[in-house]
Amino acid sequence: MKAKVYVTIKQNVLDPQGQAVQGSLHTMGFAEVDKVRIGKYLELELDTNDRAEAEARVKVMCEKLLANTVVEDYRFELEG
Amino acid sequence: MKAKVYVTIKQNVLDPQGQAVQGSLHTMGFAEVDKVRIGKYLELELDTNDRAEAEARVKVMCEKLLANTVVEDYRFELEG
Repeated sequence: MKAKVYVTIKQNVLDPQGQAVQGSLHTMGFAEVDKVRIGKYLELELDTNDRAEAEARVKVMCEKLLANTVVEDYRFELEG
Repeated sequence: MKAKVYVTIKQNVLDPQGQAVQGSLHTMGFAEVDKVRIGKYLELELDTNDRAEAEARVKVMCEKLLANTVVEDYRFELEG
């Protein structure tokens, strides 16, 4: 089974990396870019076929390691 | 219009960050995690309503700045 995890910075938290990329895009002539937010995208391969258990365990992985829930949100999808 | 961009490390390229996360997950007791690959997830807000033009321009942004196409793949979706 595969888990696709998206970790994003919370709406009210500053994203200096995103601002830097936006600035670079403007410099390069992409004036239409109003805002850039940068997060993480993780793919996990899981050796299990129990979807319910996988869902519960990936949630714990996100809470404990993959996301910093003080400043980040996460969501994930299971495939296969 | 919003663009969601996914930048992933190519299949044959080593991902030391992913390996480190996998090692940490194993240490934490998540033995079912066979493989971890870490990429980037970007959200761009674009001040345009021309979908075809947005698609062409986001492609150029990816090729020129957002992804290093030597070692990374990218894909994106447009919304709105």
